[in-house]
Amino acid sequence: MELWFTEEWLKGLRISVKVDSVVYSTQTEYQKLAIYDTKQFGRMLVLDDVIQTTECDEYIYHECLAHVPMFAHPNPENVLIVGGGDGGTLREVLRHPTVKKATLVDIDGGVIEASKRFLHQWNSGFSDPRANIIVGDGLEFVSNADSEYDVILVDATDPVGPGEVLFALDFYRSVKKALKPGGIMSAQTESPIAEPAVVKSIWDRVRSVFPIARLYTSPVPTYPGGWWSYTAGSTGPEPMVPLRKPGDDWGLKYYSPEIHERAFVLNPKMQKDIGVYDQGGDHR
Amino acid sequence: MELWFTEEWLKGLRISVKVDSVVYSTQTEYQKLAIYDTKQFGRMLVLDDVIQTTECDEYIYHECLAHVPMFAHPNPENVLIVGGGDGGTLREVLRHPTVKKATLVDIDGGVIEASKRFLHQWNSGFSDPRANIIVGDGLEFVSNADSEYDVILVDATDPVGPGEVLFALDFYRSVKKALKPGGIMSAQTESPIAEPAVVKSIWDRVRSVFPIARLYTSPVPTYPGGWWSYTAGSTGPEPMVPLRKPGDDWGLKYYSPEIHERAFVLNPKMQKDIGVYDQGGDHR
Repeated sequence: MELWFTEEWLKGLRISVKVDSVVYSTQTEYQKLAIYDTKQFGRMLVLDDVIQTTECDEYIYHECLAHVPMFAHPNPENVLIVGGGDGGTLREVLRHPTVKKATLVDIDGGVIEASKRFLHQWNSGFSDPRANIIVGDGLEFVSNADSEYDVILVDATDPVGPGEVLFALDFYRSVKKALKPGGIMSAQTESPIAEPAVVKSIWDRVRSVFPIARLYTSPVPTYPGGWWSYTAGSTGPEPMVPLRKPGDDWGLKYYSPEIHERAFVLNPKMQKDIGVYDQGGDHR
Repeated sequence: MELWFTEEWLKGLRISVKVDSVVYSTQTEYQKLAIYDTKQFGRMLVLDDVIQTTECDEYIYHECLAHVPMFAHPNPENVLIVGGGDGGTLREVLRHPTVKKATLVDIDGGVIEASKRFLHQWNSGFSDPRANIIVGDGLEFVSNADSEYDVILVDATDPVGPGEVLFALDFYRSVKKALKPGGIMSAQTESPIAEPAVVKSIWDRVRSVFPIARLYTSPVPTYPGGWWSYTAGSTGPEPMVPLRKPGDDWGLKYYSPEIHERAFVLNPKMQKDIGVYDQGGDHR
């Protein structure tokens, strides 16, 4: 017998990966959670039948989400992660020696618990003394903060289900308020090739809230379309410019200062589809 | 009833796309050929059950393969395309007003015929008076050429089946001999994330033949891993530097001078996996 996990990437488009073993499977308070071991993707976390993070390419996603705003900020000391219960973003944030405190707020404690038990590649940050882990409503948590954070990272699930509120205009306004002056936020903002209209609608919201908004991309092979977007909003520093470099001993696999700059170069069709110009190379 | 096309991207990894209609299906002299209409990928050409080119993303592949070497060459007049029977690469080459003659050699006349009948988005170049279309063995054709071409583009199928010989060391030697002094070649060289060992073995061959070898990448969502590589070999010009710009009226959707330069920036893991350094940002 063969066990295959199939995800409907889009209507009429499916990806299927052969499962070698079911590591864990449960129903949390918010969603169906499964962890599978597979040959092609390695260990992977699936929430409500959607691949969230896999051993084979999580480094690309987490390094891009975390290090682009972290290196664009002159001195990130107090960092907030909204979502990200798998721990991958927290792991990357804590590599920065400037960080004094990293707070992670995920609404689903079941994800954090599952990561602590089974996602060893992801979970090292949970035991760091600088980590402050909160199970709670990210939207509410951010609304109650005022000029507290240097960097805020929004590591949400797709904009359906529990993650939906983390893409709303009011949420981005709260994020801006929760940032210290000169703060930067970055959010995962879906696939620019599979769903450009979704990316555009998120982009328009971020741009309406932040004086500086920038879209950047990377490959993420296990997400729909294989190509992913992130949106940075800043009230001060230019997100496109890295101010420091990672240490050689960090062992980064995707991020580098050159990749940082490259990530903001968008092709003409994407510029037009999403309405993002003024990042260099304006091809209207 | 629903009809789905499923491709085995790698062992234990499949992509499936719902087929709205079978446009054409035949057995050519060399391979099984099918053209399907699908919602997610648009019209697509399938050879021996492997997706070759789709309406939704062929522009990325063809613009990258063609325009990077074409714009890095100071004056490409005589161009050779090996493979590429669908016509997409030819279409892009012929956008360059410098081109006096573009020869396309594909071993499978069935692919060219199918494109002329059904692949309207791809086939405009076949009727251009500068196009010289030859049904024949690309390997043999190139072997018989000597200092003839400014640019040679290797638009091969995967390195199994009829396309295999177009990845061999002897073939690259013939390509170098077929180029005029100061010529540039570019080849599609598989997925750097799904099959880094394959990319590395091709890279090592190209690098052993050409004094200047450069690897560049782009997303191609419908190819395995969603991320593709191309290798440029040059006996003169630097492939990383575009010398001219496309006209606004070309309507390019992926290529721009900024994308050209960005495409050569490789992340640390890829540099290490494939052994490509010295393209800026050497992260050993």
